[in-house]
Amino acid sequence: MKISIVGIGLLGGSLALQAKEKGLTTKVVGVDNNPEHAAQALQLGIVDEIVSLEEAAQTTDLLVLATPVNVIIRQLPQVLDLIGDKTIVMDVGSTKHTICQAVSTHPKRKQFVAAHPIAGTENSGPEAAFPGLLKRKIMILCNRHESDHQAFEQVVNLSKHLEMHLSYMEAAEHDRHLAYVSHLSHISSFALGITVLDKEKDEKSIFEMAGSGFSSTVRLAKSSPQMWAPIFTHNTENISVALDAYIKKLQYFKEIIDNQDEAKSKELMQQANEIRRVLLGIDKKLTNL
Amino acid sequence: MKISIVGIGLLGGSLALQAKEKGLTTKVVGVDNNPEHAAQALQLGIVDEIVSLEEAAQTTDLLVLATPVNVIIRQLPQVLDLIGDKTIVMDVGSTKHTICQAVSTHPKRKQFVAAHPIAGTENSGPEAAFPGLLKRKIMILCNRHESDHQAFEQVVNLSKHLEMHLSYMEAAEHDRHLAYVSHLSHISSFALGITVLDKEKDEKSIFEMAGSGFSSTVRLAKSSPQMWAPIFTHNTENISVALDAYIKKLQYFKEIIDNQDEAKSKELMQQANEIRRVLLGIDKKLTNL
Repeated sequence: MKISIVGIGLLGGSLALQAKEKGLTTKVVGVDNNPEHAAQALQLGIVDEIVSLEEAAQTTDLLVLATPVNVIIRQLPQVLDLIGDKTIVMDVGSTKHTICQAVSTHPKRKQFVAAHPIAGTENSGPEAAFPGLLKRKIMILCNRHESDHQAFEQVVNLSKHLEMHLSYMEAAEHDRHLAYVSHLSHISSFALGITVLDKEKDEKSIFEMAGSGFSSTVRLAKSSPQMWAPIFTHNTENISVALDAYIKKLQYFKEIIDNQDEAKSKELMQQANEIRRVLLGIDKKLTNL
Repeated sequence: MKISIVGIGLLGGSLALQAKEKGLTTKVVGVDNNPEHAAQALQLGIVDEIVSLEEAAQTTDLLVLATPVNVIIRQLPQVLDLIGDKTIVMDVGSTKHTICQAVSTHPKRKQFVAAHPIAGTENSGPEAAFPGLLKRKIMILCNRHESDHQAFEQVVNLSKHLEMHLSYMEAAEHDRHLAYVSHLSHISSFALGITVLDKEKDEKSIFEMAGSGFSSTVRLAKSSPQMWAPIFTHNTENISVALDAYIKKLQYFKEIIDNQDEAKSKELMQQANEIRRVLLGIDKKLTNL
């Protein structure tokens, strides 16, 4: 199987490396409009050749769109226009609804599978890619009824070969859920980073006291602005609702702290402690694959 | 040296285990008003004997107060009343100003050293204790001029033996900084946990999609309400200012997202990306000890 990766960054690059390691492909072709990334991807052995988007679309078995979501929306119809009858196209974007909408009436819609691997780190670019990234992670496939059965099954098989855990849902549901369990986490972390960096202007040594708790909460603030800005645009409504709920909880917590109401504060934290069950569930699922 | 640990939880227990491992003590005596924790601490070999607070204060060389900060404030003057001339008392509380204030005029104030090891996990109780917890972490010692030189040096030496990195500052400065780099992280995480758990009531499968990013940001939401509620009460003013700044940043971010202003959104995230330098600094310092 000839695989083409469009956007050879953390996700696209890791998928390529793992597909090679698993022997799923002998040749990976890359497309990247950033010449530096293209050169790095070749040098790191992530891809074997750099070609244009047109060439990749016309000569590949599986084309993976791993660019930022706004770019996926632009490239997906272009790619569908160009591919032959047997080529499958999948994406790995963090939002799914607007992407599916953008090609809902495209004559080759059935050759596209909307996918989102729940995997990533706070790093980006080809140098951040590594073969273990997708292993034991969740691959969400959306709107299966809009894809050709065979195309869909091929992406299912690819995911299984990559040792991923499969989950199926509608694009709108995906976006609603992701606003809470991923997009909100990133925003809370970005905002925390800025708040403390702002304070550093007056208190030079503030970070001397930061420990692992701070590092853990603020880690996602290192994420790529180029990738995240379009995600916010393509899931605005859901993110706005989630962010509003989060701000309200913080305001309520602040009120409790200002009133030094330890009983209510404990009650609130006990509710939050319930997250223990959730995190245990996540750990279990991801290690039991 | 005979060490007594009052409050044999994550921090107190870990300190006891590491002091034993380093051969700093042959006998650790424990005080805990929770009979279950006391029994566990004995069974796990964290302490060799359980005694009353009075007995510990009267028979020990170094007494470590590792209870929640509100309890430290109550126990510290009691303990100072009871100790002999050569006994040293230290605490490990997450706030320092009110603790130092509570004994500022005590005749034995000089025998007390106000300390805060920047170490912890989201777990609590004796079973959470482990000997490596304090290693390569920062030990902040406050208001050194209020302690006897010899007492202070003994806590410095203990910290060095525990392979900790030392930092000195005033209690008020400590509390102001910690509001940003620790207390705020915990509140942001507690609030995030509650927000998503609330959403789970309508969206049963929401956590099926949560990945490592969510886990990392919400990890601190597992922390002990009994420990944290008093911290909020003893650092209310600083936390309120920090929380207010954080909420304002979130509101500004929300406005940008609502307006789908990708340029401003990228600018904000690029500012947040600066946290990379900070986290690298933390990692470097803690591994270069």
